[in-house]
Amino acid sequence: MNQEKINELKKWMASENIELTYISDPGHIAYFSGYKSDPHERVLALFVSLKDDPFLFTPALEVEDAEKSSWIYPVHGYLDSENPWEKIAQLIKKMGTPNKIATEKEALTVARFDILNNYFPTSDFSASVTPVIEKLQLLKTPSEIAKLMEAGNWADVAFEIGFKAIKEGAKEQEILAEIEYQLKRQGIRSMSFDTLVLTGKNAASPHGNPGGTTVAKQDLVLFDLGVVYNGYCSDATRTVAYKEPTDFQKEIYSIVLEAQLKAMDAVKPGVTAGELDEVARGVISGYGYGEYFNHRLGHGIGTTVHEYPSLVTGNDLVIEEGMCFSIEPGIYIPDKVGVRIEDCLHVTKTGCEAFTKTAKDLIIID
Amino acid sequence: MNQEKINELKKWMASENIELTYISDPGHIAYFSGYKSDPHERVLALFVSLKDDPFLFTPALEVEDAEKSSWIYPVHGYLDSENPWEKIAQLIKKMGTPNKIATEKEALTVARFDILNNYFPTSDFSASVTPVIEKLQLLKTPSEIAKLMEAGNWADVAFEIGFKAIKEGAKEQEILAEIEYQLKRQGIRSMSFDTLVLTGKNAASPHGNPGGTTVAKQDLVLFDLGVVYNGYCSDATRTVAYKEPTDFQKEIYSIVLEAQLKAMDAVKPGVTAGELDEVARGVISGYGYGEYFNHRLGHGIGTTVHEYPSLVTGNDLVIEEGMCFSIEPGIYIPDKVGVRIEDCLHVTKTGCEAFTKTAKDLIIID
Repeated sequence: MNQEKINELKKWMASENIELTYISDPGHIAYFSGYKSDPHERVLALFVSLKDDPFLFTPALEVEDAEKSSWIYPVHGYLDSENPWEKIAQLIKKMGTPNKIATEKEALTVARFDILNNYFPTSDFSASVTPVIEKLQLLKTPSEIAKLMEAGNWADVAFEIGFKAIKEGAKEQEILAEIEYQLKRQGIRSMSFDTLVLTGKNAASPHGNPGGTTVAKQDLVLFDLGVVYNGYCSDATRTVAYKEPTDFQKEIYSIVLEAQLKAMDAVKPGVTAGELDEVARGVISGYGYGEYFNHRLGHGIGTTVHEYPSLVTGNDLVIEEGMCFSIEPGIYIPDKVGVRIEDCLHVTKTGCEAFTKTAKDLIIID
Repeated sequence: MNQEKINELKKWMASENIELTYISDPGHIAYFSGYKSDPHERVLALFVSLKDDPFLFTPALEVEDAEKSSWIYPVHGYLDSENPWEKIAQLIKKMGTPNKIATEKEALTVARFDILNNYFPTSDFSASVTPVIEKLQLLKTPSEIAKLMEAGNWADVAFEIGFKAIKEGAKEQEILAEIEYQLKRQGIRSMSFDTLVLTGKNAASPHGNPGGTTVAKQDLVLFDLGVVYNGYCSDATRTVAYKEPTDFQKEIYSIVLEAQLKAMDAVKPGVTAGELDEVARGVISGYGYGEYFNHRLGHGIGTTVHEYPSLVTGNDLVIEEGMCFSIEPGIYIPDKVGVRIEDCLHVTKTGCEAFTKTAKDLIIID
């Protein structure tokens, strides 16, 4: 549970005269409550009251787990045979009908929003708590940064396992199976996304699908992976060569590396998110490959693998100490070559520190 | 791509004078288009026009993959530096401003709904396509059932691997790592949810978290797992004993098995979803354990692991041939014992056929 962040949320509620906030996104519920769950189509909700205790509302079969988590306030459950909204409405009305209710407009579905509106026809639902949560999540506390660092360490472990698994004829799916196997044996419960291992031409698709393609001489092999550890995610990419690469592969790699290092060098409080994107894009465009870097430079990371800030040209958001995000330029030339290098990092007083430490000079597996 | 289902959707649109339908749920987009992707916070959308060709709208870095999928209609992309809604509005306006636009109210966020509303202030947004999609998905075609059967076969493979990995002192996380490793080496890209392996008391939590707990003599070990194969999911549960179980464990197991078999026997066109739940619940309550079966009997399955129908007391939905769902009664007595047995099945003319075939008499691992 994160009491500090709940208190900050309540400060905002007080300033806006909001009596009740309904948090519906499972990742955000985990962020505040410490209880993480994927409810599928069932209802999982966190209600934060300005004056009363907050409460979690979960399917009946999760009440025990929620109570065993770090959450110290009440947990209310509902059976599959019950109407959850009826129960929620009763719980809220016990505290008095709120004049103003804030919801997560960027997470809540239209249908659920309408249901809640119907139960509280006199309440004002105009406030969205989404920007407030995004802002709270934007600046990580030292304990959050420590958890992100641990998650990053596991990504480094994953690279080591993956690099060792590369050999002539090894299939992409075998290499990624090996990585996840070793990690899960050591207690990693979830990867933060499906592990990518792409070799040769496949690496030229930024979100490609690993399969039965085998590693051959002079392939570049791209690994994009991360774990969830203590509720926090890692996300990192390395591209390595199997056997001595061609001059062209080396050239592309060195351009991406230069872009990645220059962007990381530029990270410090005061620069904007857009400027960082431009630093990396400028390097790649300067060499004439701008059209092959077809995604933004990076994204925030925390309890979810993609959050704010978005490092994209035009974003004027000013970078501050405590922000955590990826720096991941890439060049993808269809049917030819794909290279991406990615670290996530936290912004310090004067620069930044990466969560992943695996070497970035082109590694050649022999 | 599923042209047949797109045609059925358009038939509904014609009957309701809806000129445009906006599909936003990534699972539903995959269902119609054949293109599956997790866009995170980016915009992925499928627009089905009554008169013009449908089109996919994806992040720029996914356009190539979408075009390579089975989708045969246009794919439009947007760069991270562009406003996706501006582009979407232009694409729609090219076809003429629609009088009526249907959205997925149970999937679309309030914020995105509001944005679209603002671009088309004169359009009528009252229609929700959610119930229509649910109904389309409810009845599976023979080719969908074949895919679900294949996904079920992989779950059977997974059980075999898991049972072999049970031994004195094996950790839950080691057993599940072994299962996923063997499957992923064989090309399974994603599990349909994080694999559950729970031993002893841990199995008494229906949605527990596998960890470092080790298998000991007279433990019941619960496996709940599934894969995604060709876009379709499996989901199955078996509970096995390590070494000769106690009489109490055997009693609980036999009650759950009786409930599961009786409910499966009762599956046929004409029965209601609620009646099936009552069959299983009646068996368990008859033995005095009703309070320990604290979830519904089952849920639909298809391109997602939880969809309609919901097998819960009170649901009057009439079961028809072609529906696919789980039958998964369980008894969970905290700190004592947990047993669940689950198969997913498809409804035939006269009964049902399970997608998983692993034996259900109590397996004792020695």
